[in-house]
Amino acid sequence: MTHSSDLTLGRRVMAMIEDLAQHTDEPGRITRLYLSTAHRKAAEATLGLMQAAGLDAHIDALGSVIGRIEGTDPNAPALLIGSHIDSVVDAGRYDGNLGVVLGIAVVEALRQKGITPVCPIEVVAFGDEENVRFPTNLSTSSALAGRFNPAWLDGRDQDGIALRDALIAFGGDPDGAAVLARDPALYRGYLEVHIEQGPLLEAKDLPVGIVSAINGITRARAHVIGEAGHAGTVPMNMRRDALAAVAEMIGIVERAGSTRTDTVATVGVAQVQPGAINVIPARVDFTLDARAPDDAVREAMVQDIMAECRAAAQRRGVELVIEPFMDSPATPMDKGLIELLEAAVRGLNIEPLHLSSGAGHDAVAVANLCPSAMLFVRCKGGISHNPAESITVEDADTAARVLLAAVKQIAT
Amino acid sequence: MTHSSDLTLGRRVMAMIEDLAQHTDEPGRITRLYLSTAHRKAAEATLGLMQAAGLDAHIDALGSVIGRIEGTDPNAPALLIGSHIDSVVDAGRYDGNLGVVLGIAVVEALRQKGITPVCPIEVVAFGDEENVRFPTNLSTSSALAGRFNPAWLDGRDQDGIALRDALIAFGGDPDGAAVLARDPALYRGYLEVHIEQGPLLEAKDLPVGIVSAINGITRARAHVIGEAGHAGTVPMNMRRDALAAVAEMIGIVERAGSTRTDTVATVGVAQVQPGAINVIPARVDFTLDARAPDDAVREAMVQDIMAECRAAAQRRGVELVIEPFMDSPATPMDKGLIELLEAAVRGLNIEPLHLSSGAGHDAVAVANLCPSAMLFVRCKGGISHNPAESITVEDADTAARVLLAAVKQIAT
Repeated sequence: MTHSSDLTLGRRVMAMIEDLAQHTDEPGRITRLYLSTAHRKAAEATLGLMQAAGLDAHIDALGSVIGRIEGTDPNAPALLIGSHIDSVVDAGRYDGNLGVVLGIAVVEALRQKGITPVCPIEVVAFGDEENVRFPTNLSTSSALAGRFNPAWLDGRDQDGIALRDALIAFGGDPDGAAVLARDPALYRGYLEVHIEQGPLLEAKDLPVGIVSAINGITRARAHVIGEAGHAGTVPMNMRRDALAAVAEMIGIVERAGSTRTDTVATVGVAQVQPGAINVIPARVDFTLDARAPDDAVREAMVQDIMAECRAAAQRRGVELVIEPFMDSPATPMDKGLIELLEAAVRGLNIEPLHLSSGAGHDAVAVANLCPSAMLFVRCKGGISHNPAESITVEDADTAARVLLAAVKQIAT
Repeated sequence: MTHSSDLTLGRRVMAMIEDLAQHTDEPGRITRLYLSTAHRKAAEATLGLMQAAGLDAHIDALGSVIGRIEGTDPNAPALLIGSHIDSVVDAGRYDGNLGVVLGIAVVEALRQKGITPVCPIEVVAFGDEENVRFPTNLSTSSALAGRFNPAWLDGRDQDGIALRDALIAFGGDPDGAAVLARDPALYRGYLEVHIEQGPLLEAKDLPVGIVSAINGITRARAHVIGEAGHAGTVPMNMRRDALAAVAEMIGIVERAGSTRTDTVATVGVAQVQPGAINVIPARVDFTLDARAPDDAVREAMVQDIMAECRAAAQRRGVELVIEPFMDSPATPMDKGLIELLEAAVRGLNIEPLHLSSGAGHDAVAVANLCPSAMLFVRCKGGISHNPAESITVEDADTAARVLLAAVKQIAT
C-alpha cells in the first residue's frame, strides 16, 4: 500500500507525542510513573491539548484526564476514546500516549471539518496502566467501570509512600474514586489505539491490525529445592541438581507455549543458589507467565505445564513448589466494534488482520463498562517498554484515519 | 566390618582436629583463609603438635608447617605425609586438617612403639590449598615441587591486599619461595589422607577408599545473547529467548556428564538478564565445570558439549560465546603407592575400593616432586565445605591404621 494521505493527521499526532514526551521524572529518558511530578505535568499538558481541541476537560479524582464534547442527541450514549499517559521506567514515547493523542486528533479533525457528532465523545488519558509504582491493576480505568478496589489506596511504592498520600500530593482525592463510576447505559463503546508491542504487523507488512481479544494471563512463582554438592565429587546419578531440573522445566514451558495456537509461555526469572561454578545448585526460584486468547486453552496449558514439571521433579528427586498468583481471564473485544474497525480498515484498502493482544490494556477494565475494541499500530521490531520504541508518521496517519472513519460511523 | 581396634589412634586424631578447629577468623564458624590471623594461630598450633610428636618442625617462608624426623639410613629419600590447614569460608573441620593430624598421629605412634624409621619422615601442613583468598593455585605445595609462580605474589585479595604483603604480615618471606623447592631425588613419596567430599564410600559402606587419579578439570564461562521482548506479545516462533537456549544447553551438559564413566559436568551459575517475569530473557551468563580421571575422555566430553551447544544456539538464532579459562590435566596416582595402600586396606579386612577424586588436592602439585597417593575417608552424606562436614572416630581410626601400616611398609 502506498500512502495517499497528505499525512496531516499523522504529523499532528507525532507533534502531540513529542509534546508529551518532554515530561519525565528522569532527565535523559522517559519515566513517568503514576502520580509522579512528571505525570502531573503530562496530565496538565494533555488537559491543554484537549481544551485546544474544543473538549470540556478536567483532571479527575484519580488523576485521569477526561475531555468531552456533547452530541446533537442529548439522549445518545457517549463514545469513549483513549488510553494512558503513565509509563514504565526508561520507556518509549508511544505506549499509551498514542491512543490518547489519537483521540484528541480525531476530535480536532471533526471540529475542523465542522462536524458535530450525534452522540457525546469523551477522550480519556488514564494514569495507572503500567502498574509499576503501586501494587494495583488498571486502577484508573477500573474506576470508570465501578471496579476500583479501595484497598489499592493503602498500597505503597518502593519508597513506602501510600497511593492515598501520593494521590493527595498529586492534587487528587482518595475519597473520590467511587463517584468516578459511570452508568453503563450512558456509554456506547470504548475505542483504544495502541502500538502492537509485538512483531506480527511488521512481519505481515501491515500498518494496523484489529484486536480480537486481550489474552488471559496466568502467573506463578515457583521454586525447586535440590541438594547442594561439590561439582567434582558427587556422581551424576547421585545428584539432585536444582538447576538441571529447572532447565528441564523451562523446556516444558517452552514446548507448552509453542504447540498450541496463539499461546505464549515464558520463564523470565531464574535465580540460582548458591550460584558458584564448583557447587551443584541447591535451589532455583523461577517464574511462569502463560497467556492465551481462550481461557480453556490457557488453563489446559498451565495444567499440562504443572503436571509435566511435577513429574520431572519426582523423577529427579527434587522438591517443586508452584505458587500461582495471577489468573486473569481473557477479554474478547466487542464484535460490533470489531466490524466497524474492519470496515474502516478496508476503506483504506488495507487487509484487516485480526490478532490477539498478548499485553494487558485499559480496555480490559473498560470492557466491564461498555463494548470495547482496540486497534493496533505497527511498531518497529515489535519493541516496546524501551526508548527504541518507534512508529512511522505514515502509520500514525493511517491509524488516525481508521479511527476517524470508525468514529464518524458511530457518532455521525 | 566391626571395629576391632580400641580407637586410640582415632581418638587422638579427633582430639587434634578439635584443637585446630578452635582457630578461626570468624567467631561461631570456621573460616581460616591463607595467611590470616587464624591461619597463623593454626600453624603455630600445628607446630606445637608436631614438636610434641618428636618432629623437628618450623613454619616455612610461605607459611607451610614442616616437621621432620630423621631415619636410620642417612641416604634414604624421605617420605612426605600431609595435607593443608587453610579452609574455605564457613568450613568443616576435617577438610585438609585430617591429613595433617593423621601424619602427626602416625609419627607419634611410631615413637610410642619405639620404632625409628629407616628413611626420614616429613609431615607437612600446607597453607594455600583452597585458593579462596588470592588468585593462586596450590601455591604452597607447588613451591615444594619447584613450581611456585612468582606472579602469585602480586595477586590481591578482595580487600586489595597483595599476597606479598599478607605474607610479610604473617611472618613469612616473599623472597623465600624459590628456596623451598625440594630435590626430587630426596623424596620417596607423598601420602595424603583426605575426606572423600563425595558420597561413594558411604553408598558402598566402606570407611576408606584408594584414589586412582585426581580428575582433570575444564572450566569455562559462557554467555548466550538472544533478544529481549514482551513475554505477552512476541509469538513463540519469533523469539530468541536466551534462557530457553541455556536451558537446552544445561540439558546437554548434564547428558554429557552422565553418559560417560567417572565423568561429571556441572552448570553451577546461570544469571538471567533482565530477569523480569514479563520479559523474554535477553542474556544469560553461565559456567561449565567438567571433570574426568582421563584427559582424552574429558577433552572429548568438552568438545561434544561445545559442538552441541553451538548447534542449539544456531538453531535458535542466539549468539553463544564460550570462554574456557581452566584446562587442568588429570593426575594419576602412583601405582606402587596405590599397591601399598591396597595391601594396608586389605590387612584390615576392608575391601579396597579404587575411586577417582573429583576435587583437586595438594597431591596434584606434590606429584610433580615425587610419587604421590591419596587415601579417602568416608564423610557423612558426602558433605564438605560446610559446618556439617562429619566423620566418625571409627573411620578416623581405620584411616590412621591404614596410613600407619603403609608408612611402616615404606619406612621400616
